[in-house]
Amino acid sequence: MISPSGTTEVIGILGGMGPAATADFYAKLVSMTPGRSDQDHLTAVIWSDPTIPDRTEALLGNGPDPTPWLLNGSRVLREAGATVIAIPCNTAHAFVPRIADHVGLPIIHMIGEVARHLTTVRPAVRTAGLLATTGTVRAGLYQEWLDRYGIRLVLPDEDAQHSEVMAAIRAVKAGIGGAAVTASLARAARRLTDRGAEAIIAGCTEIPLGLPADAVDVPLIDPAAILAGALVRRARAACGP
Amino acid sequence: MISPSGTTEVIGILGGMGPAATADFYAKLVSMTPGRSDQDHLTAVIWSDPTIPDRTEALLGNGPDPTPWLLNGSRVLREAGATVIAIPCNTAHAFVPRIADHVGLPIIHMIGEVARHLTTVRPAVRTAGLLATTGTVRAGLYQEWLDRYGIRLVLPDEDAQHSEVMAAIRAVKAGIGGAAVTASLARAARRLTDRGAEAIIAGCTEIPLGLPADAVDVPLIDPAAILAGALVRRARAACGP
Repeated sequence: MISPSGTTEVIGILGGMGPAATADFYAKLVSMTPGRSDQDHLTAVIWSDPTIPDRTEALLGNGPDPTPWLLNGSRVLREAGATVIAIPCNTAHAFVPRIADHVGLPIIHMIGEVARHLTTVRPAVRTAGLLATTGTVRAGLYQEWLDRYGIRLVLPDEDAQHSEVMAAIRAVKAGIGGAAVTASLARAARRLTDRGAEAIIAGCTEIPLGLPADAVDVPLIDPAAILAGALVRRARAACGP
Repeated sequence: MISPSGTTEVIGILGGMGPAATADFYAKLVSMTPGRSDQDHLTAVIWSDPTIPDRTEALLGNGPDPTPWLLNGSRVLREAGATVIAIPCNTAHAFVPRIADHVGLPIIHMIGEVARHLTTVRPAVRTAGLLATTGTVRAGLYQEWLDRYGIRLVLPDEDAQHSEVMAAIRAVKAGIGGAAVTASLARAARRLTDRGAEAIIAGCTEIPLGLPADAVDVPLIDPAAILAGALVRRARAACGP
């Protein structure tokens, strides 16, 4: 593989949503970068601000709008030299339209990358299931992008969304993982495959931390890994011939 | 446990040496921070510059001095709002005296924290073994700090340092882990316990990535975890009563 060293790209990671997911995302970016020594890797600057108000609470009208925090983090990253921004939080993408014109840098859209990726999976995925925060579901983020590619989306019913998916996400954020969390997420995934899902999108960065791929019968799509892959490809392209 | 939220501390992480070790360090900082939600965690800014010249090569006179890169990274972190700097790379601490007066922020000294920690381990550690880069060994970084606390240091002989320790560190940096690397490091550790080491210092941030604690008969001291713990305690102290 060709290392992306020599690129002038500086990856800006707008993180802290949550902090464990940010650490996991950066580890994925490093492990997906081909390289034989430190110097082959990409320069990155990470702003990890866990005080950013909860994205789901804001989308449900129960908490402050995180937009000013996202703008501040983007400014820090730009001033630190970032040339591109990645946001390893699905729900935060609901606020991307509010910040995109003010950031002054391209934002690699995690959900758009996942939708594009799904069109390349073989056998073809015509129906995908989504495990995500209630904020991501209500904001219709995956719905909008999957519609563009003609992929049908199935969602947990309201009860499973609340008692299985959100409960598991909160447990991971609180540092309480373990078998009960995995069982709960696997049960929610199974309900979606029963309804025809040929792939499950782990659509909240905490979910891959609680749900191993082998706990699901169909491919488990990790948006953080897809985003990391997109950044590595972009940086390699920026190297020139 | 009391969460450190409410602190005004912003943790600056001067990283990229190597990038996998930086990801691992940030994951340790997150997992060691008591908290029940994202918002309980510490704000952190991470400058991960893998182009920083190899620290061991510089100390052996075979490569460029990394000091300008370390000063640049420290400046980025300070301008981004960091209030304290942590450097999750043992060998880079050889250059701390060259940058400390110019950084304008306190640097929490990883090796000093390890030496202090060793005095608190029970049963008492009178002799510690060191697995580290040749740069860290030659610069005498652990020797100097352990001397202050009256702890004897045992080191691999030149052959083992080269063929077991440095070879394993380079393999981890190249993303080649696995059983051979673990066996090599475990063998080097065993040579040190045979010579009286009552604890082994995993004195390069890549070593804990290749050597699990249960592969060593005595306590394996992870400087990155000790540094993360020191940062959490400092941030909690900064919260006030």
